[in-house]
Amino acid sequence: MKVTYQGETGAYSEMAVYKFFGNTIEPVPCKNFKDVFESVKTNNAPNGVVPIENSIEGSINQNYDLFLNYDLKVCGEVAVKLAHVLITNPQTNFEDIKTIHSHPQALGQCRNYIEKHKWETTPTYDTAGSVKIIKEKQLPNAAAIASEKAADLYNMKIIAHNIADNPSNYTRFLVLSHKDAPPTGDDKTSIIFSAKHTPGTLHNAIGEFASRNINLTRIESRPTKTTPWQYNFYIDIEGHQTEKRCTEAIQALQKHTTFTKILGSYPRII
Amino acid sequence: MKVTYQGETGAYSEMAVYKFFGNTIEPVPCKNFKDVFESVKTNNAPNGVVPIENSIEGSINQNYDLFLNYDLKVCGEVAVKLAHVLITNPQTNFEDIKTIHSHPQALGQCRNYIEKHKWETTPTYDTAGSVKIIKEKQLPNAAAIASEKAADLYNMKIIAHNIADNPSNYTRFLVLSHKDAPPTGDDKTSIIFSAKHTPGTLHNAIGEFASRNINLTRIESRPTKTTPWQYNFYIDIEGHQTEKRCTEAIQALQKHTTFTKILGSYPRII
Repeated sequence: MKVTYQGETGAYSEMAVYKFFGNTIEPVPCKNFKDVFESVKTNNAPNGVVPIENSIEGSINQNYDLFLNYDLKVCGEVAVKLAHVLITNPQTNFEDIKTIHSHPQALGQCRNYIEKHKWETTPTYDTAGSVKIIKEKQLPNAAAIASEKAADLYNMKIIAHNIADNPSNYTRFLVLSHKDAPPTGDDKTSIIFSAKHTPGTLHNAIGEFASRNINLTRIESRPTKTTPWQYNFYIDIEGHQTEKRCTEAIQALQKHTTFTKILGSYPRII
Repeated sequence: MKVTYQGETGAYSEMAVYKFFGNTIEPVPCKNFKDVFESVKTNNAPNGVVPIENSIEGSINQNYDLFLNYDLKVCGEVAVKLAHVLITNPQTNFEDIKTIHSHPQALGQCRNYIEKHKWETTPTYDTAGSVKIIKEKQLPNAAAIASEKAADLYNMKIIAHNIADNPSNYTRFLVLSHKDAPPTGDDKTSIIFSAKHTPGTLHNAIGEFASRNINLTRIESRPTKTTPWQYNFYIDIEGHQTEKRCTEAIQALQKHTTFTKILGSYPRII
């Protein structure tokens, strides 16, 4: 079975695919996040895996926006611990390094370490992709930030370990599908809504969950893009949408919203 | 009087400086956002201006985090309309273009246009900086996304106008200072807090404003970075912190939080 992800072989997203589906799966790399959504929409793959938030850098905004625009479901979540290493071509010494290539999120996660050494940064589309770039271009004064696995795959040198500013560095991924998951007794439900533009509406909207003792594990806002300074809200609640209190809360929520979309219910892992 | 901003001459941040302070000011470019905060902290400049959110791409996360870590105040806000144009070296024709250089936010704002032409993207630290890069390197197959002003400043060719996916494209900036602004009768107050980790706390926390008819104009969450999947909340409320109902709400808020920081009160413009 094929599962799509964004990035090159050796990317953290590929690790997420293996962690969720096991080692018998066939991970298929895609160039960008939209391609992952597209692959599931068009049934080229039954599932795709995309990062949604990092425990240090926060939300991956583009994927929040894609969830709004595609009619796909979330059927699972998986978290991967990021262990960044600094990777160079074999002939490069530490004092040769001038520029660090990596995905902007990884650069952000190692910001103090990079600033301490007064290195320049070059953002790339993917962590493993940055290793591929400095190898293919044979850059003698460059280093890449990626996983140990990426260093191994491209036969490159690991020149420093533990370079992240904070060792407690996790990325949470969501699994895309055409249908969500059945209840397990310990589930989460992801919902997008647009609150009516009157004072106190957001408070009243999330009150529908609080009053039913449904815990809110996450709230994120994204611009609507149609009207400046108006937002869609993305919430994760504890519980499966088929549970009575959740069904009732989601129904009551719609009194306060101009638009509501249930992304799916799935087993909770964090 | 000097005012610091991030980016090169011709950057949208520089326009925000002029728009807020008028044309007699001396805008001083800084390499990164942290340098802007540092310049105000160390009194190298009395004020700095940083982008906080864009009406399409959303929050500029790094600045939210810097507001948490620096003991500076917000004394004003200003919004700038972004009018992106496509810029090339004089000898480049439209069909020569293969790669688009710009800040990741600007690339995101023109994503459909870029994808339609199947161009590659190269993220840079600044929109105006991307014009400088393709000029200095004399890249014949590159184009940059930046303002008309940036094209003029670097004597480069504007090869296409109105390239943003959404013409209603604004960035909101905050003005840094050592003290916030006096009340004007139409103000906003920005607050950071960490909600106690019990069900319903966020609902109760924002309820302190709703119950006093104080409108919440913005809510954003950022990872605490110390504990994965725990968040600080950034809210903007209507009103000045010296107004009685606001003083009371902020005091009441602290029953629900483990930490509260008032970034400042300032005249509302949006």
